[in-house]
Amino acid sequence: MELKVGVIMGSKSDWETMKHTCDILDELNVNYEKKVVSAHRTPDFMFEYAEAAQNRGIEVIIAGAGGAAHLPGMVAAKTLLPVIGVPVQSKALNGMDSLLSIVQMPGGVPVATVSIGKAGATNAGLLAAQFLAVHDKELLKRLETRRQQMRDLALESSGDLL
Amino acid sequence: MELKVGVIMGSKSDWETMKHTCDILDELNVNYEKKVVSAHRTPDFMFEYAEAAQNRGIEVIIAGAGGAAHLPGMVAAKTLLPVIGVPVQSKALNGMDSLLSIVQMPGGVPVATVSIGKAGATNAGLLAAQFLAVHDKELLKRLETRRQQMRDLALESSGDLL
Amino acid sequence: MELKVGVIMGSKSDWETMKHTCDILDELNVNYEKKVVSAHRTPDFMFEYAEAAQNRGIEVIIAGAGGAAHLPGMVAAKTLLPVIGVPVQSKALNGMDSLLSIVQMPGGVPVATVSIGKAGATNAGLLAAQFLAVHDKELLKRLETRRQQMRDLALESSGDLL
Amino acid sequence: MELKVGVIMGSKSDWETMKHTCDILDELNVNYEKKVVSAHRTPDFMFEYAEAAQNRGIEVIIAGAGGAAHLPGMVAAKTLLPVIGVPVQSKALNGMDSLLSIVQMPGGVPVATVSIGKAGATNAGLLAAQFLAVHDKELLKRLETRRQQMRDLALESSGDLL
Amino acid sequence: MELKVGVIMGSKSDWETMKHTCDILDELNVNYEKKVVSAHRTPDFMFEYAEAAQNRGIEVIIAGAGGAAHLPGMVAAKTLLPVIGVPVQSKALNGMDSLLSIVQMPGGVPVATVSIGKAGATNAGLLAAQFLAVHDKELLKRLETRRQQMRDLALESSGDLL
Amino acid sequence: MELKVGVIMGSKSDWETMKHTCDILDELNVNYEKKVVSAHRTPDFMFEYAEAAQNRGIEVIIAGAGGAAHLPGMVAAKTLLPVIGVPVQSKALNGMDSLLSIVQMPGGVPVATVSIGKAGATNAGLLAAQFLAVHDKELLKRLETRRQQMRDLALESSGDLL
Amino acid sequence: MELKVGVIMGSKSDWETMKHTCDILDELNVNYEKKVVSAHRTPDFMFEYAEAAQNRGIEVIIAGAGGAAHLPGMVAAKTLLPVIGVPVQSKALNGMDSLLSIVQMPGGVPVATVSIGKAGATNAGLLAAQFLAVHDKELLKRLETRRQQMRDLALESSGDLL
Amino acid sequence: MELKVGVIMGSKSDWETMKHTCDILDELNVNYEKKVVSAHRTPDFMFEYAEAAQNRGIEVIIAGAGGAAHLPGMVAAKTLLPVIGVPVQSKALNGMDSLLSIVQMPGGVPVATVSIGKAGATNAGLLAAQFLAVHDKELLKRLETRRQQMRDLALESSGDLL
Repeated sequence: MELKVGVIMGSKSDWETMKHTCDILDELNVNYEKKVVSAHRTPDFMFEYAEAAQNRGIEVIIAGAGGAAHLPGMVAAKTLLPVIGVPVQSKALNGMDSLLSIVQMPGGVPVATVSIGKAGATNAGLLAAQFLAVHDKELLKRLETRRQQMRDLALESSGDLL
Repeated sequence: MELKVGVIMGSKSDWETMKHTCDILDELNVNYEKKVVSAHRTPDFMFEYAEAAQNRGIEVIIAGAGGAAHLPGMVAAKTLLPVIGVPVQSKALNGMDSLLSIVQMPGGVPVATVSIGKAGATNAGLLAAQFLAVHDKELLKRLETRRQQMRDLALESSGDLL
Repeated sequence: MELKVGVIMGSKSDWETMKHTCDILDELNVNYEKKVVSAHRTPDFMFEYAEAAQNRGIEVIIAGAGGAAHLPGMVAAKTLLPVIGVPVQSKALNGMDSLLSIVQMPGGVPVATVSIGKAGATNAGLLAAQFLAVHDKELLKRLETRRQQMRDLALESSGDLL
Repeated sequence: MELKVGVIMGSKSDWETMKHTCDILDELNVNYEKKVVSAHRTPDFMFEYAEAAQNRGIEVIIAGAGGAAHLPGMVAAKTLLPVIGVPVQSKALNGMDSLLSIVQMPGGVPVATVSIGKAGATNAGLLAAQFLAVHDKELLKRLETRRQQMRDLALESSGDLL
Repeated sequence: MELKVGVIMGSKSDWETMKHTCDILDELNVNYEKKVVSAHRTPDFMFEYAEAAQNRGIEVIIAGAGGAAHLPGMVAAKTLLPVIGVPVQSKALNGMDSLLSIVQMPGGVPVATVSIGKAGATNAGLLAAQFLAVHDKELLKRLETRRQQMRDLALESSGDLL
Repeated sequence: MELKVGVIMGSKSDWETMKHTCDILDELNVNYEKKVVSAHRTPDFMFEYAEAAQNRGIEVIIAGAGGAAHLPGMVAAKTLLPVIGVPVQSKALNGMDSLLSIVQMPGGVPVATVSIGKAGATNAGLLAAQFLAVHDKELLKRLETRRQQMRDLALESSGDLL
Repeated sequence: MELKVGVIMGSKSDWETMKHTCDILDELNVNYEKKVVSAHRTPDFMFEYAEAAQNRGIEVIIAGAGGAAHLPGMVAAKTLLPVIGVPVQSKALNGMDSLLSIVQMPGGVPVATVSIGKAGATNAGLLAAQFLAVHDKELLKRLETRRQQMRDLALESSGDLL
Repeated sequence: MELKVGVIMGSKSDWETMKHTCDILDELNVNYEKKVVSAHRTPDFMFEYAEAAQNRGIEVIIAGAGGAAHLPGMVAAKTLLPVIGVPVQSKALNGMDSLLSIVQMPGGVPVATVSIGKAGATNAGLLAAQFLAVHDKELLKRLETRRQQMRDLALESSGDLL
């Protein structure tokens, strides 16, 4: 199975959030790799990773980081692959700093930003899958099935309001 | 030329922002359509649009809205195409309300959010093009050329600091 | 007893908040139904619910949601019944995202927004009752009694400041 | 024509915002009165107004105020009529202070809060009309017509994106 | 000993904060009374309290409240005694709503606002004492002694940095 | 006429705001002095001013400053006179930085904070006058007259809503 | 005269802010160079610049940027020279995004952040000079003279409060 | 070993944060002293400390404080040594008040601000070391070694994502 998605994060401590991205990709049978790539501690490796990704067959990069979160934007500056940024919830400011550092990119270098924390990590995986599914009918079917299950669970859950 | 991108916005007044999306798509020779699709004023049309988009050949939807900006998230709930959300700068709260209404989606339904206002509108167009370029070498070349020009202009601009 | 109020919420997890709405309606003997109606997971059901509410005799809809909370505003876009929105306290941003997503509606489609979390859920029930009480003298009396009790409890509570 | 709505505001300077409430009520042929009722400068008059409103036949009160906006909440404390609060955009904090002062009411005394500024003022008028329309078929028709016009205008406006 | 300070709070639950005001007043031997006076649950009693305070010999009123905190400002509107407002830390918004509701008073009706929570409650007691001490040499001495002790404790505490 | 109030400000540019304090004191016939006292540019003079104020007969200090506004708190640390802090509206953050720098004092050293900008400057003058009026019946009468005029103007202004 | 300070900025449009840094360095006779170095448009040049700075004799780097401002932090990741970050005021969020993107660096890679906009740009120049002055008595004298002038101007400005 | 750095903090309770500054300085073998210096409780001692620091051989001052954090800015006003400010995380507002009180200094008196809480305290120590290392090759080597270790740990940590 080809490598399709690179899931990277600024620190090992972001794994608690970013594992939800990997869970979705596992569930949808999308092939990915996961790595710690720190903008501030391993800047050269970050650039190498971003530059090499396209030739290694990766089609989407998902980058999670917190605080002054520079990883998604800097990777986006070094590749033309779509980059999805996940704002990890920070300690003092609850991820508002992470969100603004990731989403407020200047015109010219986009980052596809998702919500703060676990929900965003899940959505990053889904968004990557939705990109890939434009050219992958089987994946699209798995996404449709997931949506349908999600809908059915929501409809059934009214019975639990007790 | 096939239709590839749907550019929609909640109101005619969002055009001042969203035209920057269209400018980029024009510049990169990506075929798109543009429409006012209001979540709150034309909810049924919004659902029809979102449901029909995939079969009409659209591969990415870009949705701009301001304030309690529900358009991107609701469209994302009705399609499995990737949806890019542009937070239009609002009058009282400068787009912070638009940003949070678009980006803070619950797990299950992602919106690829870009920055507030003009820069975000430009980046929405670029992000859509980057998605498409994964399967379009010509478009990728145009994106590379654009990046290179952007880089050259930045390097030359040091001469203007007077 | 006729159905008067529809209490809906975006997710089963909102029940911890929204049960306070139901407690008030029970206390005031106002007939209601409660359901999970998710804007993002069950968009079609949401539209059906909103469209049918008036004919089913419902006079007020109370909708609770958190994060990018689109349920109250989208329901309001599909009915002319008054819609009360309850911002559920979100994890990262403490409900500020829920509040802005609900209250900052564009001109044309109002949502009657109450405070974040439990107090807001209680007040949503009271607000619905106050609407109904304009045409229901018995309910008005129960509301007056409740206010008086609330006042008496407040006055007596000075004795507890120890 | 009976008096139905009391439109009050904390200061003459709020009129620039609150006139949009009156425009809607005029358009929908709902009878109202408008007054400056200042929580801080005319507290006794505020209480008298709130206490007398129900017996004067008023069915909904709309109160606009800015900054430390106490008018809507204090009126709500003195009546069981539904009270709609309009956060007027303030100078330094753009209405965020007005919004929080109005919406964050404690459990027991609800205020139906709408968006900041002009859009909120418009929506306050519409919300009041929607309450009244539950028992007024003619008004409901006028609201339906207005919605339909709003929808048609939105649909047509795609032609203006040039 | 004459009554000098009225310490009031919107709810029994504010006592956990406001007891720090009373502790300071006890420590400085300033005579005070404490009461629950709720702007929203006991509005008439609030007005009576504010109106009668001056004639009862009270020279400063300290009012603590949280959320849409209207008590300090409304009391200030009903008396010409100086009113000190204590923003009680609220659940969802950490007291930012309390602070803005208290401090952002319009020109004409001042509230002397202190910091959020316990530190503010302590400072409200000290501020009241400092007002009274302008005309009370004995109280001024006690305040000077307290300051000196505070200073000495701070200077000594360097030894504890281990 | 004795000197009663010291009005100080961090910079000449704060005068546009702080003149509203002086206008009120002039109007109420309260004797004051006005000076630029900069915490950051003239720290020694600030300490001298604060230390000498009490012996010079000053009974209240009003200090206005913007941005990282340290003047009110530092003066309060050097005197036991009551200190009123006026948050001057700052350029980038609209005075939110000024407000938090002034109001969030630690337990032990209170600053009586008023609202941001012109309204706060006006209220600082009124608050000082209300302190002084506790021991000055004539001043109290002038304050009562002012309130009454303010009330009458508010009541009359309903006629201007056109 | 040796090169001591590198003044870099993300875009030509930041020059309006960053020229105030250069004005101070000119005034204090500190030798510097100024360049546009864009984190997102010229990432490789940014890394080269940061890596080469120390060997080129630069002792302090001042980096100004706005929005998702990654320049200061990324330069800091690539050098052990002290890096001063200037948050340029952004359009939608007034520089709050710039500030948080610059200041909230993770443990390990510090950026010395100054205030938003012009005042910060001035202070960046002064801070650099203060670093250099630890080993440059002449520069220290110029800084002392500047402080004294600043103090004298502040003291004299009380005469302008008219 | 000469004294190089003064680490001061507003309160003993800040030690939990500021010990991380001391840990770094210990690790890098930089000589420092640590003291409680409270702007509000020991203002005179603060001025004496700031004035004497340069002659005592100190080359950098690190000042940590929370809430209305005036210590870094006031020390900066009394010395021409570089001052690094650490915003300690506050209870109600999570350190946003500390950050703004420290970073938003007016033009003329810079404070080198680092991130909120523990990460900032660590970075303050590193920033001081980086300043000193410009003239201390041995210290520079220790900093280089630390960076390298940090980098290696980051690279290795990908193996822990399980």
